[in-house]
Amino acid sequence: MISIPEAQDIVLEHTRPLGAVSVGLAGALGRVLAEEVHAPDSLPPFPASIKDGYAVIAGDGEGEYPVIGESRAGHMDELPVTLGTVAYITTGAPVPPGADAVIQVEDTQALPPGEGEQKRVRICKAAKPGQDIRPVGSDIMQGDTVLTKGDLVGVAEVGILATVGATQLRVFATPKVAVLSTGDEVVDPSTRPLGPGQIRDANRSMLLAAAAKAGCESVDLGVARDTEGHLEGCLQAAIAQGVDVLITSGGVSMGDRDLIKPLLQRQGTVHFGRVRMKPGKPLTFATLDLQEQGGRQMLVFGLPGNPVSSFVCFHLVVLPALRKMAGWAVPGLRRVAARLTADLRLDPERPEYHRCTLQWGPEPPPNTPLAASPPASASASSAAASGPGLAACEWWAVSTGNQISSRLLSARSANALLEIPCASGVLKAGEVVSALLIDDLGGMPVPPGGGPVTPGF
Amino acid sequence: MISIPEAQDIVLEHTRPLGAVSVGLAGALGRVLAEEVHAPDSLPPFPASIKDGYAVIAGDGEGEYPVIGESRAGHMDELPVTLGTVAYITTGAPVPPGADAVIQVEDTQALPPGEGEQKRVRICKAAKPGQDIRPVGSDIMQGDTVLTKGDLVGVAEVGILATVGATQLRVFATPKVAVLSTGDEVVDPSTRPLGPGQIRDANRSMLLAAAAKAGCESVDLGVARDTEGHLEGCLQAAIAQGVDVLITSGGVSMGDRDLIKPLLQRQGTVHFGRVRMKPGKPLTFATLDLQEQGGRQMLVFGLPGNPVSSFVCFHLVVLPALRKMAGWAVPGLRRVAARLTADLRLDPERPEYHRCTLQWGPEPPPNTPLAASPPASASASSAAASGPGLAACEWWAVSTGNQISSRLLSARSANALLEIPCASGVLKAGEVVSALLIDDLGGMPVPPGGGPVTPGF
Repeated sequence: MISIPEAQDIVLEHTRPLGAVSVGLAGALGRVLAEEVHAPDSLPPFPASIKDGYAVIAGDGEGEYPVIGESRAGHMDELPVTLGTVAYITTGAPVPPGADAVIQVEDTQALPPGEGEQKRVRICKAAKPGQDIRPVGSDIMQGDTVLTKGDLVGVAEVGILATVGATQLRVFATPKVAVLSTGDEVVDPSTRPLGPGQIRDANRSMLLAAAAKAGCESVDLGVARDTEGHLEGCLQAAIAQGVDVLITSGGVSMGDRDLIKPLLQRQGTVHFGRVRMKPGKPLTFATLDLQEQGGRQMLVFGLPGNPVSSFVCFHLVVLPALRKMAGWAVPGLRRVAARLTADLRLDPERPEYHRCTLQWGPEPPPNTPLAASPPASASASSAAASGPGLAACEWWAVSTGNQISSRLLSARSANALLEIPCASGVLKAGEVVSALLIDDLGGMPVPPGGGPVTPGF
Repeated sequence: MISIPEAQDIVLEHTRPLGAVSVGLAGALGRVLAEEVHAPDSLPPFPASIKDGYAVIAGDGEGEYPVIGESRAGHMDELPVTLGTVAYITTGAPVPPGADAVIQVEDTQALPPGEGEQKRVRICKAAKPGQDIRPVGSDIMQGDTVLTKGDLVGVAEVGILATVGATQLRVFATPKVAVLSTGDEVVDPSTRPLGPGQIRDANRSMLLAAAAKAGCESVDLGVARDTEGHLEGCLQAAIAQGVDVLITSGGVSMGDRDLIKPLLQRQGTVHFGRVRMKPGKPLTFATLDLQEQGGRQMLVFGLPGNPVSSFVCFHLVVLPALRKMAGWAVPGLRRVAARLTADLRLDPERPEYHRCTLQWGPEPPPNTPLAASPPASASASSAAASGPGLAACEWWAVSTGNQISSRLLSARSANALLEIPCASGVLKAGEVVSALLIDDLGGMPVPPGGGPVTPGF
């Protein structure tokens, strides 16, 4: 049996980034750029006012001045400001030729009109040259690389692309994923009541959701019966639909009806079929070279039938492959460290990926065994200028309970997998372990009050 | 001027969760449940084998036995196991009546057939009663509440819902959001080259992406010119399209063409129009009671025109409102603590939301000023059984550079907003501050090697 890091290496070795495709800006969120993006012009493209107020010649200083015109955003009146005059200006508007500073409206005072209804204003505070003006190119210089190949397009990046007029982009294609459940006992989730010996199919809906969350297009292949013929038909359907990845669940353990591995061995190359991990031991990975499709390669992940094993294996092994195909340079799960809030019995046979909810704070969450006796380090941490609590904050791992691989409730609200070594005995509450993030920590409930804040903020 | 926490309170006071709607399981990901979900039956619904192997009577012990039949997953043959006999069984299959334990195939040995081709097997290791059997209801008991009102449906929750046959669900509706840019200088992102005085519209694409990321349906209202008439027409269009939230950008500062606030004052109630924050001071919030639409309420957020202000205000004030409408019980941003990796000049007039990228590890990221001289606490932290580095891990805040509110590159790759107090002087590298998460920390590049791992894992 190989280890999970070995399995991950094998999978990523056989996974290639997909080709580049063109998308419009509205379809770019969540994609990875396949090209550098340059600025075709400078930003601001003209010297721009930072404030609403008056464009002046700084040397003129305080005093009363005629307002010779207006420079409004979006209107270039080429109105020159000369010594002893000022022009009204709005935020973002071009600073008129001649002017070298802007006085914000709060530092001025309107005056009654002068001769011939000439507008006038009192400048109450002298300006320094350049004051409240953004010079040409101060945000972006023409030709600058604003985003680069491999960048993940988030909300801010969409704005940056719009700024530089990049409305058509080259991004990595995202994989097309087919999901197939297997097993004569497995029936559609809508089945109520269950017949004798039946269980509902949790894996297919879950894996389709996981693929969608990873940004993939997906194909629902239904449930395969436990016959070689039906299973082979489903595999052919996946191939015919041109999917990049097939994810199956069930049919990979030791039983004489576990037909997935033999089928994959006949049709392609099985790279591994057992992994030293809990849950998920029978995890299988194969590649198929599709000669009839120009030698195109399809990856097949044979996940175990127990829904928790399937959930854990997806995150540890399938998700990094999907990310690499979609252009991620570092496709693995992010690892943090977390302190156990309860004793944890070790497994002497396999390292364990223990589902938990990470919570952030200066002390153990209430209702955990550790909350009664916080570890010494929490109070010993440096507080210095950063106030009580803030520097002592850390991640606390709250187990989701009974970890048997059939109990999918052990993945409910889980945002991390703890990496628990294979050993005998117990890992004590208060120990620190590594944890792989499997959900968005920014999108979770926060404790009341939201945790300690910077002192003085 | 009010503070951001005050502004957030005002907004959430005026924000009500939307009503419940029905969705199918395939549309449930990312939604918040509006009902409790109960299990209609127990899981497993029958005593189920955990292994491939033989169903036995534990008291029989080691020895050679006739195999009287098979119990396969999905097939209920009601084959009773009697003293001195065993039955072949596959993972997940019902344990036949009479049997009280399962012996995994690895602990057995196939034998040549006996009289009349009777299959036979050697049991090499005696079983304890109940061994490798999941009793009825051991994962879920009939009637159990498996998920509750307010739960966010993630990947695991989709699987749990499928398990209990909940294929139609009541979830909170998600808000419909309209996005409008304003300003005569603002032109479509596709404009190349720019005309005199023009800049491209970054805000609209960015805010549409932000609304989509938050799970909202959105409406693109284009760019409003700086006239009362055009602006009012755009507001009416938002109302006519039945949106729950209108987000505008620009037109809310001190200029005489800043028309948003006066318009909102005429049509509804402006709750605030200036907030003590950097960036984002002119942030405006209003509610409109739409009598012609049955008294329905529309929220209007007038964001500043500078794209960074718009970005920051969206996350701090708009996103929590969208989340509350969509049923989130705790809609605010999650707060963690992070150590500064460089000195940070304070603003004496306003508290600042400084964009940064948080990186996790035992020491400051390379190429930061702090990397030359790590703080004492990093080495002083308790290492105990958890090995070098692991317990010393923390979040390091790497600034995105020049924070001027026109420079959207300061939001590139930012995953957090540091809460920096209003004061004079400098906050030193090594200090710890609070940070609000604005992106998925699980979906970011990891450092090479992925950070320290549990010792022995």
